[in-house]
Amino acid sequence: MENVVIKERLAGLRESMKNSGIDYYMMPTSDFHNSEYAADFFKVREYFCGFTGSNGTLVVSQDWAGIWTDGRYFIQCAKEIEGTGVTMFRMGDAGVPTIKEYLVENMKEGQVLGFDGRVITSQIGLAMEKALSDKKVTIKYGQDLAEGVWTDRPKLPCHDMYVLSDELCGKSFKDKLADVRAKMKENKCQAHLLCKLDDIMWLTNLRGNDVECNPVALSYAYMTEDEFYLFVQKEEVTKEVEDYCKANDIKLRDYHSVVDFIAGLKNPGQVMIDKKNVNYTVFRTLSDVATIVDVKDPTTLMKAMKNDVEIKNIREVYLRDSAALVKFMYWVKTNVGKIPMNEYSVAMHLDKMRSELPGYIELSFPTICAYKANAAMMHYEATEDDYAEIHPEGMLLVDSGGTYMGGTTDVTRTMVLGPISDEIKKHYTHVCMGMLRLANARFLHGCYGRNLDILARGPIWNMDMDYKCGTGHGIGYMLNVHEGPHNIRWAFREGMEDNQLEKGMIVSDEPGVYIADSHGIRIENILEVVEGVNNSDGQFMHFEQLTYAPIDLEAIDTSYMEKSDIKALNDYHAAVFEKVAPLIKEPEIVEWLKEQTRPVQ
Amino acid sequence: MENVVIKERLAGLRESMKNSGIDYYMMPTSDFHNSEYAADFFKVREYFCGFTGSNGTLVVSQDWAGIWTDGRYFIQCAKEIEGTGVTMFRMGDAGVPTIKEYLVENMKEGQVLGFDGRVITSQIGLAMEKALSDKKVTIKYGQDLAEGVWTDRPKLPCHDMYVLSDELCGKSFKDKLADVRAKMKENKCQAHLLCKLDDIMWLTNLRGNDVECNPVALSYAYMTEDEFYLFVQKEEVTKEVEDYCKANDIKLRDYHSVVDFIAGLKNPGQVMIDKKNVNYTVFRTLSDVATIVDVKDPTTLMKAMKNDVEIKNIREVYLRDSAALVKFMYWVKTNVGKIPMNEYSVAMHLDKMRSELPGYIELSFPTICAYKANAAMMHYEATEDDYAEIHPEGMLLVDSGGTYMGGTTDVTRTMVLGPISDEIKKHYTHVCMGMLRLANARFLHGCYGRNLDILARGPIWNMDMDYKCGTGHGIGYMLNVHEGPHNIRWAFREGMEDNQLEKGMIVSDEPGVYIADSHGIRIENILEVVEGVNNSDGQFMHFEQLTYAPIDLEAIDTSYMEKSDIKALNDYHAAVFEKVAPLIKEPEIVEWLKEQTRPVQ
Repeated sequence: MENVVIKERLAGLRESMKNSGIDYYMMPTSDFHNSEYAADFFKVREYFCGFTGSNGTLVVSQDWAGIWTDGRYFIQCAKEIEGTGVTMFRMGDAGVPTIKEYLVENMKEGQVLGFDGRVITSQIGLAMEKALSDKKVTIKYGQDLAEGVWTDRPKLPCHDMYVLSDELCGKSFKDKLADVRAKMKENKCQAHLLCKLDDIMWLTNLRGNDVECNPVALSYAYMTEDEFYLFVQKEEVTKEVEDYCKANDIKLRDYHSVVDFIAGLKNPGQVMIDKKNVNYTVFRTLSDVATIVDVKDPTTLMKAMKNDVEIKNIREVYLRDSAALVKFMYWVKTNVGKIPMNEYSVAMHLDKMRSELPGYIELSFPTICAYKANAAMMHYEATEDDYAEIHPEGMLLVDSGGTYMGGTTDVTRTMVLGPISDEIKKHYTHVCMGMLRLANARFLHGCYGRNLDILARGPIWNMDMDYKCGTGHGIGYMLNVHEGPHNIRWAFREGMEDNQLEKGMIVSDEPGVYIADSHGIRIENILEVVEGVNNSDGQFMHFEQLTYAPIDLEAIDTSYMEKSDIKALNDYHAAVFEKVAPLIKEPEIVEWLKEQTRPVQ
Repeated sequence: MENVVIKERLAGLRESMKNSGIDYYMMPTSDFHNSEYAADFFKVREYFCGFTGSNGTLVVSQDWAGIWTDGRYFIQCAKEIEGTGVTMFRMGDAGVPTIKEYLVENMKEGQVLGFDGRVITSQIGLAMEKALSDKKVTIKYGQDLAEGVWTDRPKLPCHDMYVLSDELCGKSFKDKLADVRAKMKENKCQAHLLCKLDDIMWLTNLRGNDVECNPVALSYAYMTEDEFYLFVQKEEVTKEVEDYCKANDIKLRDYHSVVDFIAGLKNPGQVMIDKKNVNYTVFRTLSDVATIVDVKDPTTLMKAMKNDVEIKNIREVYLRDSAALVKFMYWVKTNVGKIPMNEYSVAMHLDKMRSELPGYIELSFPTICAYKANAAMMHYEATEDDYAEIHPEGMLLVDSGGTYMGGTTDVTRTMVLGPISDEIKKHYTHVCMGMLRLANARFLHGCYGRNLDILARGPIWNMDMDYKCGTGHGIGYMLNVHEGPHNIRWAFREGMEDNQLEKGMIVSDEPGVYIADSHGIRIENILEVVEGVNNSDGQFMHFEQLTYAPIDLEAIDTSYMEKSDIKALNDYHAAVFEKVAPLIKEPEIVEWLKEQTRPVQ
């Protein structure tokens, strides 16, 4: 069926492109800071093609439109763009061109590529420039073409900021800034421009509320050897924040003045930036006045290696969050078929349970509650108007988390609600083995996630199947649920971050099986990287579990498991009961948990 | 005890350095072609410090000398340099400076670094230039200081070359050259200078005998869109080779004229080279006359992906070689304690058995036969004068292989000769599990060795132990026993080659345990990379075994093994018997093999 709404919007955009002399217009999924989750104001790509996933870039010409997205979203995207005339490009699949390759192949000499330079990273903008220079393509980056067409566009978000105590953060802003300045010195830089929102929040010990589920304020930070400028929307600065900034020598400037500020810098010298986190407009402005030194933002690694205070708080927060999840699982499994349940109402129920936990701030991402075949769409999200009813059969996948004073959580459990096939049991058991094998890895310091990925993915590969995403991502401390620089995956695409696994990092462990139109299984625990033995062979490392919630034994077929897998499952379940039962008051739930965590053979 | 011989040699070198105005003199382990095994003529580093391993670089100043080597050789090197005053630097260990770092730290402004530019790759030479430029260090690369000091130096090797038939190679020189020229075109190059010996041999379907255990001729190749020049020592060109070259439009030039030839090139245009395989002297000469395009030598990947004819021949050769090894193992295990045996005599016995196989050319490397604690030195080599006696106790490690018409083999078995400790059984069992787990891996096309290494190494890491080397290397076809570009390892050092695993590659699988002064265990099979299922998740890959020889069940303790490990061992042993027994005439050996390959529980 034709999607008239989208087609009309595209027609409007094409009209606007014609007026601006733009032949191809590119719309990524980003705010001005390359944030993973963009505020509604920035959802231009979604507006013009209907695809709601968290990663995708739309490119439009007068007679064609294409959306590029990754393996997590192939099923969902195909569904959402039906009838729009937009073509999907499956990133990473063999023979599928990248956007750059597509444009080099299809743009004609002398044509014009347009994009809003503020929502394109300088890395991508520069790569486009280079790739298209042979074709003499001009780049116009000064206009946001959505402005004229998207008439009911939401406003740029603007919410109060707040201050976290040094006690809660384990390290003061001034101490963190001293570390960053040491890195500036190491790189022979006199200044550093930081544009990544969660890095700015981490560094300043401030938080905001401008992006859904990310406790960040829209901001830029510019620091020299003795000054620190913070650019935020004036309306967000509470008295508390203003006093804190004064006390810490943070010079507040208006968010919208940053480009002018940069343009007006007098002899800033060498300025350290991370090209992948600086937008093209800011980069072009800065490179006119300064010598640019492109290195990784040092805050990214500092932020990822949690300090002792953060780790202590995270462990506690994860236990409380796990206990809430256990109660939720009890509620679902004992009530399904007895009371009405649908994907949306169940998600609301869980969200409400979390919101009642001490120190609750917000969800760390919109809860995914996906029943049966819907779970095959990795990041499916039911809405108030579009959901499936839940019955006592098949499985329910729930991927959820919260941000609390003391940590940000993320956890997935796939629950058996009634009869399931032997094939599903086989798949579930292999996913469980993968999760536990990675969690129990022992490895030498120096390993990257790519060295370990096969521990989680191997059981899936052994069935000649794959899940089309990484196995694990870093997680912020009262910050974004996805953060780098480390990860656990086997294959790399251009521009991906990477880092060896270091003590204090936390990382998710979430293998899965996704069978389109049938079922989806994901089990996700969060792991902490800890040091093991140090001997003449080196520093050994391993993981500690942060998540303690039962794996559904109704879906486990131990005939597929090695003896070490069975031991790992039983050990994990024993720990779940030992750690979580004391946090649960209701004796019937404790009893239920005892049964759910019983040893298997 | 003082090593007077080495100290006198170093004194001679230092005298020569003084005369030449050189403050630090660097001697790597290489011929003019960055070959892994250098001919005796090139063993300058060994001459001046006594360390005989296959990888090491010696740096000497007036009052200090240091040898850098890798983890395979830490034990051996320390032993061999005792009393020389030379300091060992353990490459890859935490806190140990690289040579470059050491020189940057220790050389004084305006000092002179010397080396023979022909035995230093351009990559390393250029990196040294760059690193030392701040210190205004001058580089002198025109002299081989060993010339005056090493009076009884062996001559440059010079042996007859020979021609392999197109039938044996599966592809003619002209067809291979067409592929290389396509790569030249792809890189917009008008010419290609190839300096890597085994690549030149592979491309021309010629072989030589100038390097111990490597069937290669000292040579250079220079090719344009319509010409092909081969630089070899005139004395090596037999009538057969001359006729072959004429028939194939190969223009023969003298080996020693290559630098003059390059210097005299008229407008060669863009010349494709691989900096890491071109020596510094040749590079400096070429860069004066041509525009250099630095890419990987395309022959390296072509050579690594064996064609169907090569694979067919390799499989047959490995079976015959396995059968010979089985007979050898029978001989050792049934005769130990009854007849006198020592490491050297046993190696000779095996070498003789191989030499009697059809199509035998030479050993693929000097046989390693290491008894008990000697096996802890990864590349220990007993000699006619220095060996251990072998008794019916402990274990014997034998790492050996041959080059035959039809393939090059490499295999390691560690055999139980008598009573062994439970600790040794534990270690042996874990090594066996590692070898089999990697061999039975299933993975997606696109994987590198680093994605798989943990399958072999994991069981060792699980004991908080490590082996300080890669798990696997590529192997040539009637060529070098170590070849790239792929490998199986987890950590990378600067300059290491790497490639994803492709159909037709062959790779070793050789985890180990090495306990200094106690024991060493290595089990090495060779695997072929083959394609598995191709489905919507991608092209799955796995390995096929090429090596079929029993794992010593006397050292296996199945209580450490998973059920899949036991199945893998039994399946492998069943295949060993099925494939090798038909090749053995002696009924008593067949019976013994049946027993050795019995299923375990």
